[in-house]
Amino acid sequence: MLSEFDLIKQYFKRELPGRATLGIGDDCALLTPGAGSQMAISTDMLVENRHFFAGADARCLGHKALAVNLSDLAAMGATPVAFTLALAMPKADPVWLAAFSKGLFEIADLYGCELIGGDTTRGPLNICITVFGELAPGQAIKRSGALAGDDIWVSGTLGDARLTLAGLRDEFPIDHASLELASPRMHLPDPRIALGQALAAGGLAHAALDISDGFVGDLGHILEASRVGATVNVDALPAGPALAAQEAATRRQFCALGGDDYELCFTADPAQRQAIIAAGAACGTPVTLVGVIDAGPGLRLIDGAGSTVDLDAAGFDHFTLP
Amino acid sequence: MLSEFDLIKQYFKRELPGRATLGIGDDCALLTPGAGSQMAISTDMLVENRHFFAGADARCLGHKALAVNLSDLAAMGATPVAFTLALAMPKADPVWLAAFSKGLFEIADLYGCELIGGDTTRGPLNICITVFGELAPGQAIKRSGALAGDDIWVSGTLGDARLTLAGLRDEFPIDHASLELASPRMHLPDPRIALGQALAAGGLAHAALDISDGFVGDLGHILEASRVGATVNVDALPAGPALAAQEAATRRQFCALGGDDYELCFTADPAQRQAIIAAGAACGTPVTLVGVIDAGPGLRLIDGAGSTVDLDAAGFDHFTLP
Repeated sequence: MLSEFDLIKQYFKRELPGRATLGIGDDCALLTPGAGSQMAISTDMLVENRHFFAGADARCLGHKALAVNLSDLAAMGATPVAFTLALAMPKADPVWLAAFSKGLFEIADLYGCELIGGDTTRGPLNICITVFGELAPGQAIKRSGALAGDDIWVSGTLGDARLTLAGLRDEFPIDHASLELASPRMHLPDPRIALGQALAAGGLAHAALDISDGFVGDLGHILEASRVGATVNVDALPAGPALAAQEAATRRQFCALGGDDYELCFTADPAQRQAIIAAGAACGTPVTLVGVIDAGPGLRLIDGAGSTVDLDAAGFDHFTLP
Repeated sequence: MLSEFDLIKQYFKRELPGRATLGIGDDCALLTPGAGSQMAISTDMLVENRHFFAGADARCLGHKALAVNLSDLAAMGATPVAFTLALAMPKADPVWLAAFSKGLFEIADLYGCELIGGDTTRGPLNICITVFGELAPGQAIKRSGALAGDDIWVSGTLGDARLTLAGLRDEFPIDHASLELASPRMHLPDPRIALGQALAAGGLAHAALDISDGFVGDLGHILEASRVGATVNVDALPAGPALAAQEAATRRQFCALGGDDYELCFTADPAQRQAIIAAGAACGTPVTLVGVIDAGPGLRLIDGAGSTVDLDAAGFDHFTLP
């Protein structure tokens, strides 16, 4: 049977020239930050049967575990540098480990993010990644900077991950072609690193976060941190290609409340509209204007005609939902 | 019921002036490293029924979860700065959370280590901490620096955590007074931060690590990384006060192979003996000379008379042990 040290050596230790001064195999990794830079740090824990189904494809899981962390860096505008991986597994399964590490390193290499250390142990499947990014001081886009009158933007499209979940749960009939189209959005999210970097470097956004628990709930964090309100046109929310073919009520519900989108939501001065559209185009990530920040508190959802829309609006919460 | 956001706010968010530029509550924390400093980073995951028993005291668990990470910083000689906490729990139990966060912040404050971010989710109990320390460039004590002729040193005492485990498992009869004396070593380990800092800042040690899986197995990592061997007098290994009252075979076994000690093992030029003893005294952490690094490979265990001792020598491994 594979020992912990063999396991790390075989699946996770690589001989690439890396950014770290000292990588896997000592008590700590050593990282020398760029002169004058700030470190952006985020951690996410993925638990079986909570964040993914038992038996989920290991390569997709390797991708997603790092992608959701990179998405937090994207939301601040940080450049990925390195990450640590802590992994609890019921057993050391070579087939699973080979696929998981393949998916993990594919996305790590895509974003130049080096695995510098970690921990492996036996236990119920749990994947905890902590990711490190760099930023020029003062460039980080926080949740607290939204100003009344700001445009509210969303990157890419929303709701196809939620549609995939509906399909996996048999919530209502969905054809195979739609699921085929939607499912990469759940299993292989793309962190919006380039867009986040462009927004931060250009000083284009006042506030940003990544949409992981659903647009409405996540926008609520910006509103709370910035002590403002917002008016959002739910019919302007950009539905994913599979969701776009569903009926209006489903489109609204899944775009607004879906979760697992890993798109950026950000606010910006209306004077930046052309620059933001150009930045999105340069990154290959479309951006959509969906609403406006209000001085008074509260989030008002309206339709294209300006009438109030009432959704059952609660973001996903890991403790209050069943 | 407590939501994830309420839980973080109530138990983990504090208003202390901290080192972080941006702490809990955004997509990432922001940390501005000291000019020219290196960051030492380590991550450890603690799993119920693997690293601690179900129903373990939550305050001790809060202490230990951070202590084992700080111990990795100590082994490099780094100064603690900050940490992230990812926590999976079967339910959000206010009594457990209050005790856990109390234990966690007691030791965090003792070492000036700020909680800057994290994640909470429902799942089998799992505590994953990533810790950040600072070092002057070139001062980190690695595992790979041991030289033939080096003294081998151990801080504090060994084996009392293992004796506690023997008591909890009823491996053999142990009196209550002994267990009372030994058990803080298992439940409330002291990371040897001050000693590690003194060794690094003074350039006193060639190689170091923290003893978490048992002295013999952990020293083996230094030998492998440094491509050297060693001769160790097992009777020189400093038994903890409770273990010291046990018979010789138990003393040897638990000192050499016990695990969960969180002491430092380090190697140094014999010319540094007085400086090392003085550094230990200044930190209130006794240090004991236990052996010598050999040019040839292999670890030889001898007794006080110089005769070979044969222990069933395997370090604790999370995958190969039952």
